[in-house]
Amino acid sequence: MIITRRFKFSAAHLYRDPDLTPEENRARFGACYSEYGHGHNYVLDVSVRGAVDPRTGMIVNLKDLKQVVQERVIARYDHKHLNFEVEDFRGTLPTTEALVLRIWDLLDGRIPGCDLAKIRLYEHDELFAEYAGQPA
Amino acid sequence: MIITRRFKFSAAHLYRDPDLTPEENRARFGACYSEYGHGHNYVLDVSVRGAVDPRTGMIVNLKDLKQVVQERVIARYDHKHLNFEVEDFRGTLPTTEALVLRIWDLLDGRIPGCDLAKIRLYEHDELFAEYAGQPA
Amino acid sequence: MIITRRFKFSAAHLYRDPDLTPEENRARFGACYSEYGHGHNYVLDVSVRGAVDPRTGMIVNLKDLKQVVQERVIARYDHKHLNFEVEDFRGTLPTTEALVLRIWDLLDGRIPGCDLAKIRLYEHDELFAEYAGQPA
Amino acid sequence: MIITRRFKFSAAHLYRDPDLTPEENRARFGACYSEYGHGHNYVLDVSVRGAVDPRTGMIVNLKDLKQVVQERVIARYDHKHLNFEVEDFRGTLPTTEALVLRIWDLLDGRIPGCDLAKIRLYEHDELFAEYAGQPA
Amino acid sequence: MIITRRFKFSAAHLYRDPDLTPEENRARFGACYSEYGHGHNYVLDVSVRGAVDPRTGMIVNLKDLKQVVQERVIARYDHKHLNFEVEDFRGTLPTTEALVLRIWDLLDGRIPGCDLAKIRLYEHDELFAEYAGQPA
Amino acid sequence: MIITRRFKFSAAHLYRDPDLTPEENRARFGACYSEYGHGHNYVLDVSVRGAVDPRTGMIVNLKDLKQVVQERVIARYDHKHLNFEVEDFRGTLPTTEALVLRIWDLLDGRIPGCDLAKIRLYEHDELFAEYAGQPA
Repeated sequence: MIITRRFKFSAAHLYRDPDLTPEENRARFGACYSEYGHGHNYVLDVSVRGAVDPRTGMIVNLKDLKQVVQERVIARYDHKHLNFEVEDFRGTLPTTEALVLRIWDLLDGRIPGCDLAKIRLYEHDELFAEYAGQPA
Repeated sequence: MIITRRFKFSAAHLYRDPDLTPEENRARFGACYSEYGHGHNYVLDVSVRGAVDPRTGMIVNLKDLKQVVQERVIARYDHKHLNFEVEDFRGTLPTTEALVLRIWDLLDGRIPGCDLAKIRLYEHDELFAEYAGQPA
Repeated sequence: MIITRRFKFSAAHLYRDPDLTPEENRARFGACYSEYGHGHNYVLDVSVRGAVDPRTGMIVNLKDLKQVVQERVIARYDHKHLNFEVEDFRGTLPTTEALVLRIWDLLDGRIPGCDLAKIRLYEHDELFAEYAGQPA
Repeated sequence: MIITRRFKFSAAHLYRDPDLTPEENRARFGACYSEYGHGHNYVLDVSVRGAVDPRTGMIVNLKDLKQVVQERVIARYDHKHLNFEVEDFRGTLPTTEALVLRIWDLLDGRIPGCDLAKIRLYEHDELFAEYAGQPA
Repeated sequence: MIITRRFKFSAAHLYRDPDLTPEENRARFGACYSEYGHGHNYVLDVSVRGAVDPRTGMIVNLKDLKQVVQERVIARYDHKHLNFEVEDFRGTLPTTEALVLRIWDLLDGRIPGCDLAKIRLYEHDELFAEYAGQPA
Repeated sequence: MIITRRFKFSAAHLYRDPDLTPEENRARFGACYSEYGHGHNYVLDVSVRGAVDPRTGMIVNLKDLKQVVQERVIARYDHKHLNFEVEDFRGTLPTTEALVLRIWDLLDGRIPGCDLAKIRLYEHDELFAEYAGQPA
């Protein structure tokens, strides 16, 4: 049994490789390359797996799940510029894929009484990445 | 190949452990604890797996699938109070997880010519549970 | 200029006319008639009208709007049974239309610095009522 | 790691078995049987699997993915009548399942640097089929 | 007070001016010009205006509204080819605007006990037309 | 008759009054105050009003409408930082309301053969502003 809770956060980001010229950056990253960045309403689906407690009928107390995700992920990224205000993406780019891997690490082993099953992150309603902990 | 048909039903429920005091119930279940209950527009995705019939190009005749789900699930829960009018949750709580397990049992082996692959139930657009028949 | 903020609440309700027999109630209200009720995930759009403050670029401070709606509407109806736990619908039925009129009265004149423009309430994603303050 | 990009196309189709009488066709296919057809706004989710490139933080350059799907799938089906203008469904019916299998074949092995992981196709918001390459 | 009920239908259509050459038709209508047509999942919002009955708390009995729209609109267009199987668009084109005007005429004066307030029709989720009965 | 076309763009912004201290800015703007900003997936609904051309069945050729909005609005704001890369909000704040007023001015009188009827802009799915050209 897997239960999934949806969260939302708004953040800014940009794609830029410091070893490339502006022209090379624009060729590789298109409109995602700029000096100041643009932004998205991210939608995060956190899925956890566990046995249903026969007394409560629940895998996890949702209050616990919400508190962990709020403290470890939403407070970290919401209303932030992912390139300039967050440590996590120094030396890499804050792509949807990189965010998913980082959120997996922030949450794995931290949800009381159940296992992290999957992280899915929507950058917008036509693009999402997901990771279930197995190497690709 | 898996095909999924979405269904909807509206129902009321509440969370209350008869062995707990009102204060203990409120501490455990928050706003979900009350005497009369609240309700949701549930969204149910029923997924079935099978081979594509080369003549019809279909896994299942959708009319058959709709009839079985309508008779065995929707008629049972739609416009009902899950605690007071339905037998299924005597002795447990009508959580999203418990509903998913019960719906799995109501449908498993009942769809003509194909296998039940997954049940996903949304309590609202930010919470859903799913079960694919394997023990967690 | 009009700005609209969306809110959500879950509640239970039922339709029953005490002057009618069960058969007459069922004929009039269909599945909405029962002893215990069913429920919905209500979606509430509160629209306010005002001039844009040239200093802040805003009609209203959204924190103020959210606080008023939270205190006067959401706290009143969320996770409640509208027939049994709320005073507002004694002597009438908690229809979508009746909820809209009541929410209008609860909010009209209460949003600091701007006027209530419209209340729209979705009972589910295929039914909504709206009221803009003019008599029908 | 899996990344999914959503695409859309509009097409017409109908279900008719040339070996059946009109009455038999109507009995089998209901309103989907007719002489001229009806249509849908199809929604196509293309999922690819791969390792995250440490330099770009990406599985795939989305411009490449979009170009392949546009050229091989969208240009083929968008604003077409699937029974009369497309070769792919001669001898079978353009069901959601048949479309998914055909789109899998059109894209499998064609996305540079990553593997096709899943094709999901929505005929409308309450019906979708999906295929991940394994036999059912 | 206005209440709105959403309906859905699937239909095929095409744009072609018989007085133009194929090249001229293609220049004017783009991909919407073809011999056989394409299709859409149409979404129809029917809004009615009236006084709230103090006894029932309703503007209109929704069963009545649904029956009228089902019989006069949905049965007429659902699973049809709008150019070839429906009389309404002989001599004109089945655009979203033309459908809205025709649906207005089909429903105006036909909803028991209340007035037709607005017709809104979505061809897809990024295009809709609406008409409230006043000349443009 | 009014027809509405939906557009999308992604942008970054922040709220900061240069005459206030950081503490005062934070008190007024909450998480929207920062040095680098955050971002949103904006959704823009452009509504135009006109008479239906009896020959084409259309108010406006949608290709014309899309080209004007693309050139004058989307190219201006998409993948931009509204505070640092766009001239329009020097001396004011890039709120949803301010964007709506600016987009109205960019489009009013520019759509061939019809009138601009309304601009609606969603900052996210729970907040939108709209303007129809009349002073509040």
